[in-house]
Amino acid sequence: MRPSSSRSDRLLAGLSGDAAVDAELTDRALLRAMLDAEAALAGAAADCGLAPRAAAEAIAERCHPDRYDPAALGAAAEESGNPVVPLVRALTEAVPESARPWVHLGATSQDILDTALMLVAVRATGPLAGHLGAAADAAAGLAAAHRDTLLVGRTLGQQAAPTTFGLTAAGWLAGLVDAGTRLRGLRAALPAQLGGAVGTLAALGPAGPAVLDRYARRLDLATPALPWHTRRQPVLDLAGTLGGVLAGAGKVAVDVGLLARTEVGEVAEGGPGRGGSSAMPHKRNPVDSVLVTAAARRAPGLVGTLFTAAVQEHERAAGSWHAEWEPLLDLLHLAGGAAARTARMLSGLAVRPDRMRANLDTGRGLVLAEAVAARLAPTLGRTAAHETVARAARQPSFRDALRADPTIRAQLSDADLDQALDPAGWLGSAGRFVDAALAAYRSAGERP
Amino acid sequence: MRPSSSRSDRLLAGLSGDAAVDAELTDRALLRAMLDAEAALAGAAADCGLAPRAAAEAIAERCHPDRYDPAALGAAAEESGNPVVPLVRALTEAVPESARPWVHLGATSQDILDTALMLVAVRATGPLAGHLGAAADAAAGLAAAHRDTLLVGRTLGQQAAPTTFGLTAAGWLAGLVDAGTRLRGLRAALPAQLGGAVGTLAALGPAGPAVLDRYARRLDLATPALPWHTRRQPVLDLAGTLGGVLAGAGKVAVDVGLLARTEVGEVAEGGPGRGGSSAMPHKRNPVDSVLVTAAARRAPGLVGTLFTAAVQEHERAAGSWHAEWEPLLDLLHLAGGAAARTARMLSGLAVRPDRMRANLDTGRGLVLAEAVAARLAPTLGRTAAHETVARAARQPSFRDALRADPTIRAQLSDADLDQALDPAGWLGSAGRFVDAALAAYRSAGERP
Amino acid sequence: MRPSSSRSDRLLAGLSGDAAVDAELTDRALLRAMLDAEAALAGAAADCGLAPRAAAEAIAERCHPDRYDPAALGAAAEESGNPVVPLVRALTEAVPESARPWVHLGATSQDILDTALMLVAVRATGPLAGHLGAAADAAAGLAAAHRDTLLVGRTLGQQAAPTTFGLTAAGWLAGLVDAGTRLRGLRAALPAQLGGAVGTLAALGPAGPAVLDRYARRLDLATPALPWHTRRQPVLDLAGTLGGVLAGAGKVAVDVGLLARTEVGEVAEGGPGRGGSSAMPHKRNPVDSVLVTAAARRAPGLVGTLFTAAVQEHERAAGSWHAEWEPLLDLLHLAGGAAARTARMLSGLAVRPDRMRANLDTGRGLVLAEAVAARLAPTLGRTAAHETVARAARQPSFRDALRADPTIRAQLSDADLDQALDPAGWLGSAGRFVDAALAAYRSAGERP
Amino acid sequence: MRPSSSRSDRLLAGLSGDAAVDAELTDRALLRAMLDAEAALAGAAADCGLAPRAAAEAIAERCHPDRYDPAALGAAAEESGNPVVPLVRALTEAVPESARPWVHLGATSQDILDTALMLVAVRATGPLAGHLGAAADAAAGLAAAHRDTLLVGRTLGQQAAPTTFGLTAAGWLAGLVDAGTRLRGLRAALPAQLGGAVGTLAALGPAGPAVLDRYARRLDLATPALPWHTRRQPVLDLAGTLGGVLAGAGKVAVDVGLLARTEVGEVAEGGPGRGGSSAMPHKRNPVDSVLVTAAARRAPGLVGTLFTAAVQEHERAAGSWHAEWEPLLDLLHLAGGAAARTARMLSGLAVRPDRMRANLDTGRGLVLAEAVAARLAPTLGRTAAHETVARAARQPSFRDALRADPTIRAQLSDADLDQALDPAGWLGSAGRFVDAALAAYRSAGERP
Repeated sequence: MRPSSSRSDRLLAGLSGDAAVDAELTDRALLRAMLDAEAALAGAAADCGLAPRAAAEAIAERCHPDRYDPAALGAAAEESGNPVVPLVRALTEAVPESARPWVHLGATSQDILDTALMLVAVRATGPLAGHLGAAADAAAGLAAAHRDTLLVGRTLGQQAAPTTFGLTAAGWLAGLVDAGTRLRGLRAALPAQLGGAVGTLAALGPAGPAVLDRYARRLDLATPALPWHTRRQPVLDLAGTLGGVLAGAGKVAVDVGLLARTEVGEVAEGGPGRGGSSAMPHKRNPVDSVLVTAAARRAPGLVGTLFTAAVQEHERAAGSWHAEWEPLLDLLHLAGGAAARTARMLSGLAVRPDRMRANLDTGRGLVLAEAVAARLAPTLGRTAAHETVARAARQPSFRDALRADPTIRAQLSDADLDQALDPAGWLGSAGRFVDAALAAYRSAGERP
Repeated sequence: MRPSSSRSDRLLAGLSGDAAVDAELTDRALLRAMLDAEAALAGAAADCGLAPRAAAEAIAERCHPDRYDPAALGAAAEESGNPVVPLVRALTEAVPESARPWVHLGATSQDILDTALMLVAVRATGPLAGHLGAAADAAAGLAAAHRDTLLVGRTLGQQAAPTTFGLTAAGWLAGLVDAGTRLRGLRAALPAQLGGAVGTLAALGPAGPAVLDRYARRLDLATPALPWHTRRQPVLDLAGTLGGVLAGAGKVAVDVGLLARTEVGEVAEGGPGRGGSSAMPHKRNPVDSVLVTAAARRAPGLVGTLFTAAVQEHERAAGSWHAEWEPLLDLLHLAGGAAARTARMLSGLAVRPDRMRANLDTGRGLVLAEAVAARLAPTLGRTAAHETVARAARQPSFRDALRADPTIRAQLSDADLDQALDPAGWLGSAGRFVDAALAAYRSAGERP
Repeated sequence: MRPSSSRSDRLLAGLSGDAAVDAELTDRALLRAMLDAEAALAGAAADCGLAPRAAAEAIAERCHPDRYDPAALGAAAEESGNPVVPLVRALTEAVPESARPWVHLGATSQDILDTALMLVAVRATGPLAGHLGAAADAAAGLAAAHRDTLLVGRTLGQQAAPTTFGLTAAGWLAGLVDAGTRLRGLRAALPAQLGGAVGTLAALGPAGPAVLDRYARRLDLATPALPWHTRRQPVLDLAGTLGGVLAGAGKVAVDVGLLARTEVGEVAEGGPGRGGSSAMPHKRNPVDSVLVTAAARRAPGLVGTLFTAAVQEHERAAGSWHAEWEPLLDLLHLAGGAAARTARMLSGLAVRPDRMRANLDTGRGLVLAEAVAARLAPTLGRTAAHETVARAARQPSFRDALRADPTIRAQLSDADLDQALDPAGWLGSAGRFVDAALAAYRSAGERP
Repeated sequence: MRPSSSRSDRLLAGLSGDAAVDAELTDRALLRAMLDAEAALAGAAADCGLAPRAAAEAIAERCHPDRYDPAALGAAAEESGNPVVPLVRALTEAVPESARPWVHLGATSQDILDTALMLVAVRATGPLAGHLGAAADAAAGLAAAHRDTLLVGRTLGQQAAPTTFGLTAAGWLAGLVDAGTRLRGLRAALPAQLGGAVGTLAALGPAGPAVLDRYARRLDLATPALPWHTRRQPVLDLAGTLGGVLAGAGKVAVDVGLLARTEVGEVAEGGPGRGGSSAMPHKRNPVDSVLVTAAARRAPGLVGTLFTAAVQEHERAAGSWHAEWEPLLDLLHLAGGAAARTARMLSGLAVRPDRMRANLDTGRGLVLAEAVAARLAPTLGRTAAHETVARAARQPSFRDALRADPTIRAQLSDADLDQALDPAGWLGSAGRFVDAALAAYRSAGERP
């Protein structure tokens, strides 16, 4: 039960994560965040007159992650069940004797680790938001460029009616913007944690709330009205938001994977030299789509775990709190990888309007059955129009069957039928919805 | 595969739900919401000049749930995979022939069902928010009344340090207020759905966005910038928010259950005649705590399912959409039951300050070890103080051991020690945190 | 908080369930199972000399579900937190005074409800196993009929290499047989529950284990070595097995949905008049595939909930036990619906070998790149062969590029190339794997 | 998106895992398993006459994990989406030119990685089963030693009726034995994977099944009837079994945590120097209980993820397969840590029969209410007896109230009452259930 030196991280974790985000999730990054919390606590105590400024400065000076060995701390953590206890011991030993009384003043382990996890989340959302922004930029580019590119809309796996590739990309954009907006909003709301042993800040006397406020400000985190040791809404907000990022990216990835299927061939992932197969020389696998899809499949279990762990008893919980640490880091890791890959996938996406048009035409006009029925409905009635067209749709040639039907001929001329069977004439508000999505994206001002 | 006439709903579902919330989740309520959507669609079409006003009125008149048989619609739904297809057929038959062309104009089944589920969610959040508000009121009452009632704080299952029952209740309050605030915010943001077959509103010609806006306004739902058939952030927002309600209520329930344990006995559920056992004449089980805990255990799986289902392909999805319906209704059901029971549990809670004090004293002062150490730290140094006190804590009588230790005696007089060992003197900011939670609650203006 | 009269069961639940399985999951079915447990308990007590035979018979006579009102029991359950307490009260009132002392003798509510849920599970697995068997029969029929029907194998969404539709169906068969075998094994192992208040059977004196054994035998359930009130392996076994059924059915459904896509068109769901759309007259949606996919997406959350609930404390748990009831019934419901729909989907499946062949040929031989490389590897070396073929695969015509490459020409004649590019010659052991799956299916003797 | 050099593994992962199990889950261990698969494949090809023996031996010789750099392979994996492609490239380069055509012969990446994950699972279950066995040994020791140690049974958090600590430990034992038995059974059934590009083993010609069989035998894995690339029952079996291990361990941990609460104090975790707090000198936290509880809370999300990922399309899946890798390793990691800590927790458990007795007596006989009622039932009738006793139970002194009740006095003498109120006389079959659990454990022959 000594700490594992490592799990399969170098071999597999790169496929689910992103280097820039993962750099904020390492041992060193977590250690740095814990030490930032300790330094801020000493500083806040000095700000409030509870500790000598010199002591706070001496402590802050030793709060550098390179001074401590994560493996040794991890091993020593086994004794107390969390890594803060040995870190406080090591930090206390590292500071001059005169500063020692003010190390970890009034805090409990959970104060430091909760705060550190919030800091890690804030720091990881930097590159994460950057990737989301790049993905949104790329989606916006596709939506604008293909505003009027015809595509067959597919519902329940079947060709249904014409749409545009621009509207598909606008949907991706809207999803990415939703996720980015929520992430940005959340980032500003993540709170510091400081409550002491049982949430009363007893050891700080009457200065508790003032120290808490200074501590939070020094860390650029929100000041909570009261400690949240066993009230885990901030963790749930993170879980929901990151789950939303993965759902938004997953939707793009699943669409790209389906549009890139050999029989469809409407898009392809770019990137020369990627997607090779160990067995098949001709394969170009849509690797980013596959890996983002995989990440999206894993998110709900982690989100569920964090909701399970959120029911925490008494003043500090026996296990549910500990159950949050790794799943929260895993969700940040997966969200980072998914956002980065989505940005790359969309930036390099090869779009094939010719294949889109060809697939649209494959259905021999069937996807315009609704358009024909709509023209007949005012005179035949909706139900009769629907049934008349459905009958023609079951014939080998839909167009010929329409022309041969006397009921239809009585209503629609050849020119009317040709018009009804032109997909470009049955796009409704596709273009305006694209414009609306782009406008919303631009008015968001900053990128998500 | 004919529709099940019923599952075990009368025998079991009452134990997980609440009658007022469940009344918004019945077949009839869902049917009503689907018909409201159809009526609003016809009205919006008339508003925009696409349909005769008389037709819209004729349609609206037939949009009453009592006109349709849920069992027959459910059976017919088997053919198409959703209940909207047979409902539209029945509604079309019900309206005068002249109005038929404008029934379901330009819409697809998902438009109606998504909108209906949002309506159902809005309607269910009425009584749900009421229960949450009642629970928050009761928690606020407990926090105010017991602002200074001593309680032993427990961490990792062990007595740790003094706190107040008021602070415990303030934590419950803050959690319930968080959940209520999110619920209220979400309610205003839930969007109507209208996109037609593939999200272009093709059948509405250029009037699409205008009809969508009128439709949403008539239903008092938000107008989305573009259809969200396969972009499920609204469902994720609901999932996260309802999961948060269940976590907030679950935290209260778990605490009440633990505080009500026979050996602790600090609170008891009220309600005469409740909690009997079939085997044991003396048992008074904390029934509401148990049932809310059960609901909270079930929420994460449903939240996870909705996140799983949120990755939807193409213009409308083949299965993932259908996977949302029942879990979303189940979450509303569980949240309603949990909120109602939490309100009842807190309103009737018997609080026993004498037992709280007795349990605090059981530890023979051990829970003030931190207080003693804090007084020694400035002179002995933090580590030495900690160790000196820990040594005394391992003796049979902590108080005597403290008195007998020459190192301690050199620093603290008998009076100092007595003061250090008085729990009322080691409450830190407990009272101020209670005040802050109450102030935040009141300034929220309305009840959640 | 009175019991909900009903949730949206008639409108929606038919789409996720199956009538025959659901008939075992109704209020009445659960009530019947609870009463069967009570009757068996009285009978077992008489068998062991603890109760007069006449009393046991009088009790058994009143153990008929039509004598009791589920809605009234559900309402009364609110008081104690489970429906057994009011049922025992009603049963006691229903029996002659002389028999009353032997009603519910030595049992606790959980004994009756756990046993009833095991009985319900056993009864529901009857039709469920029937549906699985029918689905396996249909899959076996497809595997045999299409043992040598060429199909293009698809990996990561891309055409990869030739296979047969028979092997695809054999894979479905193997999955359904796996699920059925596990279900049959599990059914025999599901235990009765009888432990009394705290698992000691105190009220039965020394006869406890004998009564438990007779009780289990009368119910045709397994006799556990000791009560399992808070040791939930039987529930986990059920969860895992039902989750496996849904995964096995879901795999078939997802494949059918993809093979039925308009651009692929290799299979279609049968069933005239099914799959219509409310908007599009031409649509034939793969409804069973969609609904089974939806059920499969919902299973993991319920499986996870049952694993969450399995950690139960002390002698009987405060909430985790209550959290199991509805998810377990929901899983049985979903498994029933998925198995029934899979049987119907496979029985009526329209298979289109011509489309399979056409799609195989679309790739202009690319899917035989591995076959060509394999012929070159012995002389060129594996890597060079792979690269040579990959180069040709990037040309417009793979076949022409192969013919034009001097390195290849030096190794392979036109006839060699033609042979290498014949998909029927690159099927490896497909046929033998089909035979193996059919043999395993037949040797299973009974249908799953 | 270069591979993360590492996540927070040294600091945190030691708290959820176990060194011996984790040693089988490292990069090196996974690499070793992949190379074992490649070596076995070459060997099997030679066994079947498809490859020269010398080539197979040359390949096997290079299949040593220290020859390859996981970080470089992980980085290169980004291109193809899995680490097998670069590993095969590196292995091919490492072997003499003459052996190269037989590297990775006929296999696809998934063959190697699936097989490697099964090997890793088998290897990890070695120490895992060892820990489970040690935990079961310790539980058996406690059950035997405390077969007759009185304990108050608790249901729904309330003291209910007497039982023995031996029966509690026997329940733990039975749960651990269940988990161990399933694990042992599963281990023998885990299959090798070999199917080639699309599951036909095309490149092996008619020798496919023979090579598959030799390959599996060389690896000591089961031979599947046909490849299982998208039929994931083996992964589900692993998920369910490991989830069961974590539920079994979690039940022990939750019980230990509750029995160790300050107010209960019936057990304590051993281990001097463990469980210290950073703030409170007197605290002795039940660290193993806490960490096992945390692991058990995390398992259901991972189990659910593997069930979600099990629905895999076509011949090889685009994302769902990739979603399995890390969750499967995480589950093995958590199960290892939980089993090891449970073994340590139970081996060192301090049991306090005096506290058990004192808590039993706290209830002033109330927990024997059922015993008194049982003595009255034959004459008063069950309901009247229940109510008579319940009335007495609501008085300040239960014993006095019983004595003062004329109805009771008419039935029971003082001696009868004393006997009824002796907990040792109301243990039913507790002892025999302990004996049954021990007998089942011993007859299992080997330790789980």
